[in-house]
Amino acid sequence: MSINKNVNRLIPSARRRRVIILALAATWIVTWSLSSWAGSDDAIPYPSGYRQWAHVKSALIGPQSPFFESFGGIHHIYANEKAMQGYRSGRFPDGSVIVFDLLEARESAGVTTEGPRLRIGLMVKSSKRYTETGGWGYEGFRGDSQTDRSLTMEGRKGCYNCHAQRKDNDFVFSAFRK
Amino acid sequence: MSINKNVNRLIPSARRRRVIILALAATWIVTWSLSSWAGSDDAIPYPSGYRQWAHVKSALIGPQSPFFESFGGIHHIYANEKAMQGYRSGRFPDGSVIVFDLLEARESAGVTTEGPRLRIGLMVKSSKRYTETGGWGYEGFRGDSQTDRSLTMEGRKGCYNCHAQRKDNDFVFSAFRK
Repeated sequence: MSINKNVNRLIPSARRRRVIILALAATWIVTWSLSSWAGSDDAIPYPSGYRQWAHVKSALIGPQSPFFESFGGIHHIYANEKAMQGYRSGRFPDGSVIVFDLLEARESAGVTTEGPRLRIGLMVKSSKRYTETGGWGYEGFRGDSQTDRSLTMEGRKGCYNCHAQRKDNDFVFSAFRK
Repeated sequence: MSINKNVNRLIPSARRRRVIILALAATWIVTWSLSSWAGSDDAIPYPSGYRQWAHVKSALIGPQSPFFESFGGIHHIYANEKAMQGYRSGRFPDGSVIVFDLLEARESAGVTTEGPRLRIGLMVKSSKRYTETGGWGYEGFRGDSQTDRSLTMEGRKGCYNCHAQRKDNDFVFSAFRK
């Protein structure tokens, strides 16, 4: 009887174990899928070291601008070496990376200085990978985070749709200020 | 009689020639002195290529600032590799060069953009050469010129006198914005 009881206890326990194993497997599959997505060729990596790349140009977008809601603040554009070739030639080679660095603008006693980083946006040239968006992939990272991505698929399309008006300039708005 | 006349004419001509030679010699000496001064170790060279150095930080000085008359506009600070070591460690090694790049600020529809260059200022570290000004030499170039120097000896002393308040920071005002 006591053996039977033990057997009876074992049955639901074996079921539970199966459920736990299945749950763990499912969790592992989800985690693996997400991490492999994040590490896949589709995910644009954070542009480490961009703060020491060449500084292309800057501007300040104030509250009176229609662009304030989306891009208000002080922004700087930085370019890696390949993108610098593009600024010189007008054609950006694969591997070009351009960063839009957006900071809060703080005004005091007539002097406007750079506040905390709001986000960075970047465009990466890969003519084979981004065939549907002019050869450029778009990404964004919130604040100082190197992992908190700010762009949805819809947002990326929005970047492309706006940059498309600069098709004749290889989809790049900025020019290197001498 | 005609021979005498010719001889008489020759005498003042020889004197004139001597005067011309002396005048040319004097001009040459002055020119040589100026050019050798400009090319001497005392003259700080134009910081060629600084636009592709690391971008330290930026600010906009508007008309309401007491600094507007001297520094009004958008300015960017650039640092060469040695100066970047200084920003990291707090002590700037000899050979450090920091450029203050001052551009006209142009506002339109709420967006402030960079206009023409007003001037650049620079400070160059050489602890043995600039013993009387904290180890830093100061220079300026007007607009986009690489030869039109904007600082008098008095002006250089003015730079030092102001930077002296930052002695504990090796006479540097700016900090590298992350």
